[in-house]
Amino acid sequence: MIRRTVRDIRRRNRSDVLQCTYAAGHPVNRQQIAAATGLSTATVATLTGELLAAGVLHEVGQEDSRGGRPRARLSVNGARGLLIGTDVSEDFVHIALFDLAMRVRGTFERPLDPGGSSPLDVVELVALGVDEVLRDSGADRERVLGIGVSVPGLVEKEHGVSLLSVYGHWENVPLKALLAERLGFPLYLDNPLKASTVAELWFGAGRGVDNLVVVTLRTGVGVGMALDGALYRGVTNCAGEWGHTGLVRKGRGCRCGRLGCVEAYVSAPGILQTLREADPHSPLPALEDQRAAIAGLAEAVRRGEPAAVQALEDTGDHLGAAVSTLINTLNPRVLVLGDWTAQRLGEPLLDATRAAAARYALAQPFNAVSMQLCRLPHNPVSMGAAAFALEGFLADLASGAGRAGRGGARPVRG
Amino acid sequence: MIRRTVRDIRRRNRSDVLQCTYAAGHPVNRQQIAAATGLSTATVATLTGELLAAGVLHEVGQEDSRGGRPRARLSVNGARGLLIGTDVSEDFVHIALFDLAMRVRGTFERPLDPGGSSPLDVVELVALGVDEVLRDSGADRERVLGIGVSVPGLVEKEHGVSLLSVYGHWENVPLKALLAERLGFPLYLDNPLKASTVAELWFGAGRGVDNLVVVTLRTGVGVGMALDGALYRGVTNCAGEWGHTGLVRKGRGCRCGRLGCVEAYVSAPGILQTLREADPHSPLPALEDQRAAIAGLAEAVRRGEPAAVQALEDTGDHLGAAVSTLINTLNPRVLVLGDWTAQRLGEPLLDATRAAAARYALAQPFNAVSMQLCRLPHNPVSMGAAAFALEGFLADLASGAGRAGRGGARPVRG
Ligand SMILES: [Zn+2]
Ligand SMILES: [Zn+2]
Repeated sequence: MIRRTVRDIRRRNRSDVLQCTYAAGHPVNRQQIAAATGLSTATVATLTGELLAAGVLHEVGQEDSRGGRPRARLSVNGARGLLIGTDVSEDFVHIALFDLAMRVRGTFERPLDPGGSSPLDVVELVALGVDEVLRDSGADRERVLGIGVSVPGLVEKEHGVSLLSVYGHWENVPLKALLAERLGFPLYLDNPLKASTVAELWFGAGRGVDNLVVVTLRTGVGVGMALDGALYRGVTNCAGEWGHTGLVRKGRGCRCGRLGCVEAYVSAPGILQTLREADPHSPLPALEDQRAAIAGLAEAVRRGEPAAVQALEDTGDHLGAAVSTLINTLNPRVLVLGDWTAQRLGEPLLDATRAAAARYALAQPFNAVSMQLCRLPHNPVSMGAAAFALEGFLADLASGAGRAGRGGARPVRG
Repeated sequence: MIRRTVRDIRRRNRSDVLQCTYAAGHPVNRQQIAAATGLSTATVATLTGELLAAGVLHEVGQEDSRGGRPRARLSVNGARGLLIGTDVSEDFVHIALFDLAMRVRGTFERPLDPGGSSPLDVVELVALGVDEVLRDSGADRERVLGIGVSVPGLVEKEHGVSLLSVYGHWENVPLKALLAERLGFPLYLDNPLKASTVAELWFGAGRGVDNLVVVTLRTGVGVGMALDGALYRGVTNCAGEWGHTGLVRKGRGCRCGRLGCVEAYVSAPGILQTLREADPHSPLPALEDQRAAIAGLAEAVRRGEPAAVQALEDTGDHLGAAVSTLINTLNPRVLVLGDWTAQRLGEPLLDATRAAAARYALAQPFNAVSMQLCRLPHNPVSMGAAAFALEGFLADLASGAGRAGRGGARPVRG
C-alpha cells in the first residue's frame, strides 16, 4: 500500500513552488507564489528560503509594495546546472540540453533504423548525441544535474529493465544500467507516455490541474495520466497502454498481433493507412519519413483535397470514439492531444476529434473536459525526460545526496 | 488542485488502523496493527488511544507476551452506534442496518417499478424501509450515526444533486436534500460504482491494495476505481461510466441512445439478449424478475445446456474484451467482478472472462492483475453506502462535529 508521509507533502509543496515559478514566465514574489499555490505565506517563506539556499531560485531585484517592505522578486536560477532530456523514439533519437530555467541550450537529432537498432547501438547513439550537444553548446559536463531518457514500451521501474515487448525486438534489456554506466550522470528511465504527462504537469496544460490525460500520437499510441495531482503509474509502471485496447472488434491488424487496436487507427501509420483507403493513389503513405508524410497530409487538408479531408475526418471519428472511453471512465479536467502527429495535424484534427467525442462520450464528462493540443515549445518527451531528471535532483536536494550537494557522488537512481 | 495536508495523512492513518481491525476478523493487539499497516508503534498507540477514547474501539481482554507486559486486544466496538446502507437500484431498494462492527442487524428489500418511480416515491420508500428495519431490529433511532444512499447514475457531490440522465426520467433532482430532510440522519449520497469500491476497500478485496478496479454488473454497468490507495472520483464525481464506452462499433443499441456500449452486452439485460440470440426459445429473457432470469441462466450453465453455455462464453468474451481496456490503461493489482449479476453467474463467468482477457490484454498488465469475484458477505452497494456513513462519522470524530460528539447537531454532509 502507498503510504503518504509528511515528507511527501513537503516534497510536493516544494515542487508546487517551483512549478509556479516556471509557469509565471517572469520573476514572482512570495505573495504571488502563495496565491498561486494555495500554500500559507509561512510555508512559502520556508520553501523559497531552502530553494534560494540551494541555488535553485535566485533574487532578481525587488519591487515596491506601496509603502511596505520591498518585496524580493524570485526566478529559477538557470545557471545552477543543466538537465538533459532524451527521446529514444522508434524512428529517431532526440536530445535536448536545458539550463535549470528550462531554456534550451542545444539539441541533437538522428534518425533510427526502425526495428533495426540493438540496445547497444542506441546507447552509443545517445552517448554520441550527449557529447555533441554538450560540446556544441560549450557546456561543462560537470554541470549536468541529471539525464532523463524515454524509451518506447514498458519500462519496469523497480528493476531498471526496459521491456519493449510490444515491439518484439527487445526484451528484458537492462537499458538503465547500460546507459548509466556509459554516461556517468544520474539517470532516469521511463516511457514517452509518462514523460509527456510530466512535461505537461511541470510546464504545460497540466499545471494546477487535478485530473489530466495526455494522449501521445506518434508511431505508437498511448496515454499518460496525472490523477488527483500526481503521475499515475499503475502497479508495475505500465499504465497507459490504451493504444492496444480494442476500438473496432475484428478490425485492422495491429503490430501487437491483435485486431482493431486504437493504435492501428490513430498512430501515424494508422492515419496513413486511412489515407490510403480514402485514396489508393496518394503518394504520402509510401514516404519513408512518416513525419514528412503526416505533414504532407496536414498540407493537403489545408488545401481542401477531398481524400485528405476524408482521412482527417475518419481519423477524428476514430480518435473521438477512443478518447471517449478515457473521458467517460476517468472524467478528466484536461485532455491533451500530444506529440508530433497531433502537432502536425493541429486544429483540424482537434476539431474533428472533439466533434466525434461529443457524440460518443456522455454529456456530463464531455462537458467537464477541456480538449487541447499540446502547446509545449519543444519535443514534449524530451522536456518530460528532463523533468524526471529535475524531480530526481530536487529529491536529492532534500536528502543531500547526488549532484544536488555540488560535487557529491553520482548514484544511479529512478 | 488537490492539496494534501498533514490532517489528510492523520485521517488516512486512522482509517488504516480501523480497516485493519475490521480485516482481522478477531481482536488484534497494537503490534499486529503496526505490522499490518506499516505505521510506527508510536503512531498506532496515539491513534488507537483516540479511537478507544471515542468508543470506536474497545479492549476485549489481554494476551501474554512471553514475560513482557500483557498486550491489550482491541476490536471495533459494535455497540458504539449504527450505520445504514441503502441501495436504490433501478429495480429494487435494499436497506441494511449494521452495528459499528459491520454486523448486520436487519435488512429491508422491496422491488421498484423500473422507470416508473418518482423521486418522492423513492424518498418515501427509503423512509419506510428505514423505519421498518429499525423497528424490526429493536434499534434506537438516536443511535444511528449516519446513512449512506446509493442511487444509479451521476451524482454531483458539490451541489448534492442526483443527475440520473443516463436513465432519462430523472434530471437535476435535489435528492440529497429531500432524503436528509425526511430521514434526519447525517446523509451521504453517491452511486453504486463508488459504493462498491469503497466496500471492497474497507471490507473486501481492496484492503491494502494500491490499485483496485471494481466492475459492477447489474441492470446497469460501470466501474469504480481506487487508485494509489484512494477512491478516484474524477473532476465532477462522474468517473467510472465505462458502461457507456464503445465495445462494438455500430453494435447493439444501448438505452443511452448510442450503439455498441459495453453495457449493452454485459449488463443483466445484455446477457439475456445474448442468451436470446443463442436460443430464441429460451423462456428466461422474458422473465420479469431479471435476478431470477440470471439465476436461471447460471443453473442452465451448471446443467450444461448448450445455448446457456454459449451465452456464458460469449458474455465472457465481451467482458474480457471490455475489462482489457481497464487492465491495459490502469494496470491494476486487483480487478473485482462484482454485484448480483456476477455473483449469480460466479466462477464460470470469471473463468470465461479471464480466458478472454488473456487474449485481449497485453501480457504485462494481464500478468500483474488478480481477477476475482466479489466475496463480500452482503449486498456490496449497501455495505459501501454504510462505509460512506462510517467515513463521515470518522471525519466528524476528528472535528468534534455531528453525532460523533454523542448528541450533537445533525448536519447534512457529503
Ligand atoms: Zn495493438
Ligand atoms: Zn450506452
